[in-house]
Formats: sequence, C-alpha cells, structure tokens
Amino acid sequence: MEGLLRRCRGLHTLATCSPQLRGYTPHRLHHCTPGRGRRLTLSTMFQPQNLREDQVLPLDGRSADLTCKSQRLMLQVGLIYPASPGCYHLLPYAVRALEKLVRTIDQEMQAIGGQKVSMPSLSPAELWRATNRWDSMDRELFKLRDRHDKEYCLGPTHEEVVTALVASQKTLSYKQLPFLLYQVTRKFRDEPRPRFGLLRGREFYMKDMYTFDATPEAAQETYGLVCAAYSRLFERLGLRCVQVQADVGSIGGSLSHEFQLPVDVGEDRFAVCASCGFSANVETLDVSQTSCPTCQGSLTETRGVEVGHTFYLGTKYSSVFDAKFTNTHGSVSLVEMGCYGLGVTRILAAAIESFSTEDCIRWPGLLAPYQVCLIPPKKGSIEEAAAELTEHLYDHITEAVPRLRGEVLLDDRTHLTIGKRRKDADKFGYPFVIIAGKRALEDPAHFEVWCQNTGEVVFLSREGVLELLSQVQVV
Amino acid sequence: MEGLLRRCRGLHTLATCSPQLRGYTPHRLHHCTPGRGRRLTLSTMFQPQNLREDQVLPLDGRSADLTCKSQRLMLQVGLIYPASPGCYHLLPYAVRALEKLVRTIDQEMQAIGGQKVSMPSLSPAELWRATNRWDSMDRELFKLRDRHDKEYCLGPTHEEVVTALVASQKTLSYKQLPFLLYQVTRKFRDEPRPRFGLLRGREFYMKDMYTFDATPEAAQETYGLVCAAYSRLFERLGLRCVQVQADVGSIGGSLSHEFQLPVDVGEDRFAVCASCGFSANVETLDVSQTSCPTCQGSLTETRGVEVGHTFYLGTKYSSVFDAKFTNTHGSVSLVEMGCYGLGVTRILAAAIESFSTEDCIRWPGLLAPYQVCLIPPKKGSIEEAAAELTEHLYDHITEAVPRLRGEVLLDDRTHLTIGKRRKDADKFGYPFVIIAGKRALEDPAHFEVWCQNTGEVVFLSREGVLELLSQVQVV
Repeated sequence: MEGLLRRCRGLHTLATCSPQLRGYTPHRLHHCTPGRGRRLTLSTMFQPQNLREDQVLPLDGRSADLTCKSQRLMLQVGLIYPASPGCYHLLPYAVRALEKLVRTIDQEMQAIGGQKVSMPSLSPAELWRATNRWDSMDRELFKLRDRHDKEYCLGPTHEEVVTALVASQKTLSYKQLPFLLYQVTRKFRDEPRPRFGLLRGREFYMKDMYTFDATPEAAQETYGLVCAAYSRLFERLGLRCVQVQADVGSIGGSLSHEFQLPVDVGEDRFAVCASCGFSANVETLDVSQTSCPTCQGSLTETRGVEVGHTFYLGTKYSSVFDAKFTNTHGSVSLVEMGCYGLGVTRILAAAIESFSTEDCIRWPGLLAPYQVCLIPPKKGSIEEAAAELTEHLYDHITEAVPRLRGEVLLDDRTHLTIGKRRKDADKFGYPFVIIAGKRALEDPAHFEVWCQNTGEVVFLSREGVLELLSQVQVV
Repeated sequence: MEGLLRRCRGLHTLATCSPQLRGYTPHRLHHCTPGRGRRLTLSTMFQPQNLREDQVLPLDGRSADLTCKSQRLMLQVGLIYPASPGCYHLLPYAVRALEKLVRTIDQEMQAIGGQKVSMPSLSPAELWRATNRWDSMDRELFKLRDRHDKEYCLGPTHEEVVTALVASQKTLSYKQLPFLLYQVTRKFRDEPRPRFGLLRGREFYMKDMYTFDATPEAAQETYGLVCAAYSRLFERLGLRCVQVQADVGSIGGSLSHEFQLPVDVGEDRFAVCASCGFSANVETLDVSQTSCPTCQGSLTETRGVEVGHTFYLGTKYSSVFDAKFTNTHGSVSLVEMGCYGLGVTRILAAAIESFSTEDCIRWPGLLAPYQVCLIPPKKGSIEEAAAELTEHLYDHITEAVPRLRGEVLLDDRTHLTIGKRRKDADKFGYPFVIIAGKRALEDPAHFEVWCQNTGEVVFLSREGVLELLSQVQVV
C-alpha cells in the first residue's frame, strides 16, 4: 500500500498540491511583512478610487452618460470602466462578485441536472439562415466575415447552435432524455441604445440553458424545474423577483416567463393582481386591459428589469435541424426543447441598483467581493498601539473561519483617519466593517463592528467578532 | 448578539446558503433512487460515446481532418465537437477539466499578486491603429463594424486595451506599483490553417497577464516572478515544459521566453544544450548555428508546443497610450510593462497529447474531469449481489473524503459486462477505476482497483480504498 501511494504520487496521478499552496490569498510577496501571515491590503488593489487614494473623483466629462444609480456607483468605486459604447471592463472587485454569482448559478443548475458546456461565440451564418433569424434579427447581430469570406455572427443566444450539436448525435434514445445543457459565456447584441451600464450592454455575460425532452409533458415538467431553480437562485441572493407571463419575441415557442426585479429604472412594465397573484408583462396584455383577466381584480403596474427569461420551444428548432431521438416504440421523434436565460452581469447591476442607497453600494451578502474590511488606527494617533491587534484579528479570523480566507481586506491606508476610511468602506459596501478605535485599547480589547446591511453598530471582543463572522456564508 | 445574528441573517447580509445546498452533484432528481444519496451516473452524461452507449463510433467522414492523437481521442470520447473550422464545442467532461485548469492558474497568478479583470472581446480599431497593429496583424484579426459603422476587432490579445485602461487612471503613484492584471477569456485569431484540434484554433481560451512597474529593474524582477509562477503551474500539472529564449514576434519588446512542451506534433522547434542548460527556439538562432552559443556544447533539437509565452515590453505600449505614474522625484514617468500568456485550451490538449497512449486518454491528475469511476457488476451476473456494495462504497467515499464529492462517477450501464465498461473507463482515463467483481462477494469484500496512471491493479478492502483515495488532491 505504501509503495502504491508513493508510486501514484510520483506519477502525478495523485495531483501534486503541496500544503503551502492551499488557502492562497492574492498578494504581492514583497508587500507582506516577513514572518507574518499573508494579508490582503487595500492599498495594493487596482481600482480607480484606491489608485487615487483619498479622493473619489467626479467622473469628469462623463456625467451625460450616467443613466442610473448602479452605473454611477459602479464607476465611482472602480467596479467597472467604460471600454466602448455598451462594453465595460470588469475590474477586480466586479470580477470577484461575478465569479461568486457564477458559482451560485452553477450550484443551482447542477442541482437540477444541468451539464455545463462551452459553445463558440463565432456562430456560422448558415445556422441562422436556416431559422431565418439571420434576416429577422439582422442589425441586432454583430456580423463578420473570416479570411475565406465565410460569414459568422457573434452569438447573442445559441438555440441554432445547440440544436445542431444535439442533432449531430445520431443515435439518441428516449432513455437518455431529458438532458439539460448550459453555459455561462459572453453574449453580443448590437443594441441601438446601450445604456444603464451593465443593465443594457452590447457585450455581456449570460447563462443560457437548453433542455431536451421526449414528450411535451416531460418538457413542461422540465420547464417547471428550471423556473423553480431560478426562484431558488433569486431567493438565495435576496432578490424579490416576480415571475410574469411574457411575450416569446424573437426566440419563439408557445410559453414564456420573465423574472422581473422591480427597480425604478427598469425598462419593462409588468402588472400584478393582488387578489389572485396573476402577473404579466404589459406587452402581453391588451392595451385596454385594466382589470385582471383571470379574476377581474385590479392590476398594479410596476417597472422592472428582466433578469431571467424562460421559453418552452416545443419542436420549433428541432424540426429545422432534424434533432431526433428513438422513442419507446422504436420509431424516431423530434426532441422537445426549452431555453432559459439569466443575465449574469445584469443581475449584478440590478442587485446593486435595488439594494444600494444613493451614495453607498449594498450587495447581496453572497456576492459581496469581500465580506470583511478591517480598519486599523491612524498612524501617529493615540490608538496606534492597537494597530498590531488589528493584524492579529485578521489572522485569527482567517484561522478560525477558513472559508473567510481571501474574504478579509485590511485597509492599510493608515495615513488617513479612521473616519475617512470608514466612509470609503460604507461606499464600497463590505457587509462587515471592523474598526480598531479607542475601545481597542481596553483590556480585553473591543472592536467597533458595523453590520452595513442592517445598519447596526456594536462593540465586540475578539471572541464576539469570531462568533459573528463564523455565521457568514461564502460561495 | 443573538438578535444581531438573527437580523443579519434575515436581511441576507449573512448569505443564505442552506446546508442541503452544499456538496451539490450534477444529477436529475428523478434519476436518483429515493432515500439514497445523490450519485453521479454515467448514463445521464451528455457526451457522444455515452449517448451511443456501447459503441465507440468511428468518426465517419472526418478522418481527413484528424491531424493528431489528442484531437482524435478528444473527439472519440466526446470531450469536444467541431463547430466550424478551428472552433470547437467543449462538452461537459472538457468543461470540468478546463475549470480545474483555470482554478489552478488562478491560484498561481494570485499567489504572486495577480488581480483578475475581464476586458471586452470587442476591441475598438482606433487602439490598434495607434500601435499600427490594425495593419500589421491585418488578416489575423477578425474585424467587424457595428450598426454605426464603427470598426472593431475581436481581441487576440489585450496590450493596447489594458494600456489604455491604465493610462486612464490619471494620478497613479509609484507607491501603487507594481500591479499585475490578468484575465482568462476567449481569444480570437483568424488562423490561415487551424489544425490539431484545440492546439491551433481560431477561438480559444487564453490567460493573459499584464504587469506595470516603476523601473526597468522592478519590471525584470516581476518578469522573473511570473516565469517562476509558470514553472510552478507546469510542475503541479506534471508537464515537463522547457523555458526557451524566444522571438518577440508581433507583440514586441526586448526580452521573451516560451514555455515549450515537447510533443511530436509540436509546430515549434527548440534547441537545448545538455552541458550548460542553454535553450532557445530555433527561430532565434542563426541557421548555421550547430553548437551552443554560450559553451560551444552540442545542441539537441526537439519539437514542442508553445504553452506559455512571456514578454518584457518596456515602454513600447505605455509610450503610445501615455500610461504614466508619479515617480519618487514627483515628476511623471512612463510605466514599464510586461505581458504573459498561457494557452488554456492548448495546455489541456497538449497535456492529453503528451500523456495519452494511442487509444486511451491520460490526464494530469489535477485536471481529470472525474477522479474515480465505480463499476458495479453486470445485471443478472453471479456478482450482482455486490451491486449494493458499490453504491455503499460510493457513499462512503464521498462521506469520508468530502473533497471527492462531485468527483466520483458510477458506471450504471449494468446491461454491459464489467470488461466492456472497464475498457471504456480505460479510454476515458479516470485516474482510479474501482470494480466490484468476484472478490466483492468475499467477507470482507475486496474491490479491484486500477490505478490507471501507474498501470497497477490491486485488490483493496473498503478501508484500503478509502485510505488510497484520501491521498487524492483536487482543485
């Protein structure tokens, strides 16, 4: 056995991951105090506010482009930076939040059997011509030609592509159905009027899932399963989305729902009946409709951002690409399809739009780029003696709550007052801000803890801090 | 304290992640035996071989396109599927391996202080015109126009874009340097002759890092740091790459190295001197050069695949975009840059090309899509009584070694013989294949364990299996 283990190790069968490689935290080696643990420090983060240190610059010359609160806040604190109309750079804080959102989506999609794939962005024109969408979507598609003059579009969605892929699997049997394929990739849409930052861009991240079933009944069951997964996702994020009946638009099919997040800048309008729970995008209602079509109760109209969209497609695409399977009778039938989208970068911006105040970003707890910000005393202040205590607290937190490794940030800009850094932390929206102020010099030391999402401020000993933070979940 | 915790939870400050949501495994609810744990089953996986069940189809009509072993094997077992010339669908097994590779890369890049960003694929023409690469790279770029007739290319690399981004941060100080920005995204290059599957594609995943330093000396130090991180990465993957002196090509700069993996189908040739360790791409040597330029020893030439490339750029790009910082004297200087690429999908294919036999895929242990495949007895066989034991073993493994949750696959195609499924498992290259054969009926039961990377076969009790698997590292 010993020999076996040794040989396996030697051959890289047992992956070589030495212990010191675990629990990595982003840092620059020479930024670390030798002999101490590695700590994440704010001064080394690349984001505009920090690079300009103690000034939050006005976005000079850009104010005309600022179309909503989330866009303004995300630009101000350096989550995003404009690249071209409707295209943004995602900076380090935003990428951390995005990756947490993708992991949460992965969990929910895989819990219902979703299998992750990755389809190219370059999408051959002939597939889009087969469904007539090359012409019907026309200018919404970014179109290009390669060096051999072959035409492509940059995929805004992948119904054609995935159906052709499944059709290529010639000997599909009913026993292998259903399957659910999904991806999280960049999508491209040449919006005539990109606006609201990440809410309506031209290049953005989307999760798109495509499902394949043997019968309309099974496909409807799958449809319900995916909708329930979407609801669970939004619940975990704390987003109170409303599932409304929707128009099928350019995707097609016979049944469709949108998940709408109510926010003031939302470009969609949906109506809800308080009596029976009926809800619908107003596009699907007759303009003269003022009462609920099912119970005649009164309808309340709300503005929303569409963060998810589901379609029951039937055989609309499988009939074009001849995607078939062998049914229980031994003959071949067309597969029944559904498609399901989540606007990934849009969910991020919509959550910030929904949770934030005018001046301060607030995050769904699960998505906050960092969970904890520690603020040590100002250099040269009376409290400076507590500086070391803050570093010890940092180490205690990451030792006692290993899942918070990489989630705790030390605001080492100690040339600034505590008040100034506390204000920055408020703007960034770290869920927990922990300050070593006057009471840190007491015995035992007490830290000032701001629970930013509840607005509460409490003084806690080291043990109290650890108890509180041991409750924090990360994804 | 209790109240505080409750309020935080209620407000989604403490992320809501209920315990049953942990340790998710991809499955379809109705594929699970009720009352049992959730198990990953091979019959529900979407990949061509499995969909065709007991036949590995010849790739009819495609044999002319098969240009190397890794491409053939990856197509045969359903890791990839062709979408258009040089563009492949990555199917579920390949996505799992890719995500493991990306996590490993993230760890190594963040260990040296790398901060992850995400820059758009749509890259404005004016940036490329500024460096003259719009014309000099010309047909290698995929070029397109938007609805307003503005020109873009699809980024094959991001020197222009990232330099413009950093230049936009007006008040950069020397105190904030160095910083290292990187991303893992799809890149696009209109190759005249895409071939070798993922080894030379037109749309592919790349990790690109850009570093910013105050002085040439600091930039050289950073250059060494990134090269060392690349070496650690390849070492963890078990890939014996050679770092060779290289030509700067279209990227430019004054110093460049390639990381070459020796494989027969490699399109690069490099020379190594056994005496002094000198190594160089032959492009950088005089054609008449037959002996080592440093020690006059003899040079051995090898074919390799370039899996990484590093460039010291100096101020080549920062001078064009005026990317400056305030130096220690209070005046402004141009930042010193480096850029560093890893071919992510290429590393995956190159590792398979390097490790596999003619018929069977072998993986770097860390990247295997699933670490363990369990094969229960054939239905109706004498050993069928041991079927339940296999399921119990599955549950024991995932309980005793929690990091293997999601890494153990049950080959539930019990209408096939053990031999047939064992052969399939060999082809797929799961590092550990565990079979419940005749000796599973002994008391205590013994399982046949194939350690595929060492070629060893041993019989182990349940405890022995758990001890062996407890050594397996996953990323």
